[in-house]
Amino acid sequence: MSRWEPGARERLERAALELYDERGFEQTTVVEIAQRAGLTERTFFRHFVDKREVLFGGAGQLQQFLVREVADAPGSLGPLDAVAAALQAAGGLFAERREHSRQRQRIIAANAELRERELIKLATLSAALAEVLRRRGAADRAAGLAAEAGVAVFKVAFERWVDQANHRDFQQLVQESLVELRAVTAGR
Amino acid sequence: MSRWEPGARERLERAALELYDERGFEQTTVVEIAQRAGLTERTFFRHFVDKREVLFGGAGQLQQFLVREVADAPGSLGPLDAVAAALQAAGGLFAERREHSRQRQRIIAANAELRERELIKLATLSAALAEVLRRRGAADRAAGLAAEAGVAVFKVAFERWVDQANHRDFQQLVQESLVELRAVTAGR
Repeated sequence: MSRWEPGARERLERAALELYDERGFEQTTVVEIAQRAGLTERTFFRHFVDKREVLFGGAGQLQQFLVREVADAPGSLGPLDAVAAALQAAGGLFAERREHSRQRQRIIAANAELRERELIKLATLSAALAEVLRRRGAADRAAGLAAEAGVAVFKVAFERWVDQANHRDFQQLVQESLVELRAVTAGR
Repeated sequence: MSRWEPGARERLERAALELYDERGFEQTTVVEIAQRAGLTERTFFRHFVDKREVLFGGAGQLQQFLVREVADAPGSLGPLDAVAAALQAAGGLFAERREHSRQRQRIIAANAELRERELIKLATLSAALAEVLRRRGAADRAAGLAAEAGVAVFKVAFERWVDQANHRDFQQLVQESLVELRAVTAGR
């Protein structure tokens, strides 16, 4: 077997999610994931630190992307609009991965440890967004609140996006949630 | 030693926070807490399930209080205003406990496991607030967003309230954060 299997990462990811979904996250071993992908355990560990990173590696990439988008957003955009624009742009990152995202959400919802990890990732994202908003010149408290509000918009939009019954795209759902948040905070 | 020591819970709590603050949460044992409080380990376990509950028992009480306040808020209040009114009312619960709250925040900030626990408590609070807002008749998505926004206001207000340099009371800080959130979401 060659050292670099083409598409190994994707195959491992697909195999891992299938197994987590079928048997539960706890009950799945790295050996089983590698077997189902037709690869070795060593290959798994070349791509992922552990079983959990298969699920959360993407969250780090998303955070980097959002932070860069907010940093590059036109100075004329207020802090929440800068975050919303970044979220809309991120839609392109996972547009193709709706089925994958649904499967991932099911797996996370079924396991308390994974739910906690997801909360921590979102809190880390909020802190990173607040930080970049401050660097763009937002006041300390406004930056924190805009970041929290932006993450709330993201959560609501993402939950709707992975909902089987929902066929609208992520960008539209971000826009809707933002309008809804504005209505809620305006007290309507 | 009598079975029910007067003020035992408060003495144990004070002793625990002193020790967590001095030595770190991980490094403190229940035996040491009981000793410092001049009580027995058995008495500790009559009041608290474990070391962690000394820090997080209050979060459950706060959640119950907030949910009840939101449920009883005048129907004329929009969802976020109902949450804000509940937060203002809760200020009375911890007004006397500013030093205690500062010490607690220091302890939590110093320990990754405790920071995670705090995030989980806040996520649980958000879910409970969304649920009671739905029962009051808010639409599903508006309830979720108002709850998230309310928890963001709470976090920002609480952080400022425990800040040594800040002398304003919690109610004022909630009001300020709400005004700030409105400005941020209005895009100003």
